[in-house]
Amino acid sequence: MRQVVLKRRPVGLPSTEDFEIRQADAPVTAPEGCLLAQTLFVSVDPAMRGWIGAGANYADPVPLGAVMRALGVARVVRSDLEPWREGDLVFGWTGWSGACVMAPAQILWRVDPKLAPPHAWLSVLGLNGLTAVKGFDRALARSGETLLVTTAAGGVGSLVGQLGRRAGMRVIGLTGHPAKARLARERFGYDTVIDYRASPDLGAVLGEACPDGIDVFWDNVGGHIADVVFDHLAVGARVLQCGTMGLAADGAPTGPRRERVMIVKRLTWSGFIAMDGDFEADQGVLSRLIELVGEGALANEDEIVDGLSQAPSALVRLFAGENLGRVCVRLSPDDHTGEVL
Amino acid sequence: MRQVVLKRRPVGLPSTEDFEIRQADAPVTAPEGCLLAQTLFVSVDPAMRGWIGAGANYADPVPLGAVMRALGVARVVRSDLEPWREGDLVFGWTGWSGACVMAPAQILWRVDPKLAPPHAWLSVLGLNGLTAVKGFDRALARSGETLLVTTAAGGVGSLVGQLGRRAGMRVIGLTGHPAKARLARERFGYDTVIDYRASPDLGAVLGEACPDGIDVFWDNVGGHIADVVFDHLAVGARVLQCGTMGLAADGAPTGPRRERVMIVKRLTWSGFIAMDGDFEADQGVLSRLIELVGEGALANEDEIVDGLSQAPSALVRLFAGENLGRVCVRLSPDDHTGEVL
Repeated sequence: MRQVVLKRRPVGLPSTEDFEIRQADAPVTAPEGCLLAQTLFVSVDPAMRGWIGAGANYADPVPLGAVMRALGVARVVRSDLEPWREGDLVFGWTGWSGACVMAPAQILWRVDPKLAPPHAWLSVLGLNGLTAVKGFDRALARSGETLLVTTAAGGVGSLVGQLGRRAGMRVIGLTGHPAKARLARERFGYDTVIDYRASPDLGAVLGEACPDGIDVFWDNVGGHIADVVFDHLAVGARVLQCGTMGLAADGAPTGPRRERVMIVKRLTWSGFIAMDGDFEADQGVLSRLIELVGEGALANEDEIVDGLSQAPSALVRLFAGENLGRVCVRLSPDDHTGEVL
Repeated sequence: MRQVVLKRRPVGLPSTEDFEIRQADAPVTAPEGCLLAQTLFVSVDPAMRGWIGAGANYADPVPLGAVMRALGVARVVRSDLEPWREGDLVFGWTGWSGACVMAPAQILWRVDPKLAPPHAWLSVLGLNGLTAVKGFDRALARSGETLLVTTAAGGVGSLVGQLGRRAGMRVIGLTGHPAKARLARERFGYDTVIDYRASPDLGAVLGEACPDGIDVFWDNVGGHIADVVFDHLAVGARVLQCGTMGLAADGAPTGPRRERVMIVKRLTWSGFIAMDGDFEADQGVLSRLIELVGEGALANEDEIVDGLSQAPSALVRLFAGENLGRVCVRLSPDDHTGEVL
């Protein structure tokens, strides 16, 4: 079977040369208390930069020479773990690998393809949905407030924008590409979308779009764009730091000090990762997400790339902003050759 | 009577030349719905730099030529405002002035000299106490956690340290002067006090003092000292931004970007000012403070300077770190000459 392993730690943004495609013998049995599964879809996430970098992160770095860490949807082939049976679909830590052995710690939840197609369990019913709902709950949003979301059409941002609309907020999206701006407006229902690359004076544009300031700032990028947004926060604003796509991964980036504005505007700025909660709470969030998806209340846009060997280049394109929608890789028969069945 | 007025906006730190002492006719009657009071004590606060500067602040700047904004304790001389009577002591916005007319908006609460001396109503039973308790409530402190306080022996810091000890926390104080370090240790009960001026490698000292990281960081300074503390925050730490004594007031200070560490350590960073709450809530806090002071559970150290004309130099000394304890000015008979009685 095929696997993608980490060959070296990236200098700056990830490149395809940081990874290596290799053939490996597929496992043939499920060890005690584990299941053996064939991978169908794997995720390509902004968070991966942190997982493969040398800098401090919330998770240990992926070791050099190891299979790349990734969430995936997989079909159970053998199981020595209750209640899993052959043919069940599972969402969990598959890695970028044609097949995988999963212990309970690697399993997140069951995929029900009748509720949504398998790839949707990597996005709206996966970590993106979990992140959006758990973070949005922290924002203590009130109807009539203004929400600003960076990477407005991205896997998480697109969901946050829709949650904001449902909560009665006025929702402003920032994105850096006309096609993403269109998607944000037409598909995800943002009230206003600003293409920051087409806005040389972003501050003036924001000032016009948010004359009373921004009450909730959902930030997936940080850096210079966040600096401009901070200038337009309202008193009492809440800032959710969900990602840092706009920051260099290496070095020690500097920028305006926030100490003063924190007080002057009485801000609350929280950083969070979705996977911190307890499993019970996450199951509750998943139930809410399933309900919303069932009602057609949460649109999602998944960009599907075919073939595991395309995963590294999909990650590079993600950081170049060339994706449109949430990126996942669909494994092809080649990726499973020599596999378990 | 004597008054201190703002002559010009400071460039950098406040200097005595930014102020002017003037003689003024004292008011002789209490206008409708107001009281007329003779000022006994006025405050000298770090926050004053923000009030007189040109930069963004939570309050409008003190106009040039106007009496300097300050909290004070005053004795009512005439009253057209229920329930105030001649001889009552009041805590409120007196300004740096020998006498003042106060409408309800300028009045915070009644001073009871049987509970604590009048100057204590400017510190532990005044804005400092309100700030410490309201901010500490936000920190969601848990017993056994580590609290770090900057300006550990200051008007607010000294109270926060004591609240932390009462909550069962391990309390670390940072200060920049041996006499303040002694005060923090002996009077305010800090477990560990670090004199940062005597610690060339503050990071190493902090690492040794807080091997498991800092859970609550109460910051009155910001800047380079805060940078070192951020490196030693524990996962899930709460940062309370109460002041920015360590930052230049002018210009746009820069420093390390926090976006990444906010996520990696899942931090919550809040800026707040004590006067944001509703009056009812503040009365509840005052009752708690009165109880603590009554039990002898909250030590405070007030440095009393005599004569209103000393107020500007007391402010300058405060920013030079030359004060020991919370600074207030006691008005002298000269300051009241020509006054209302």
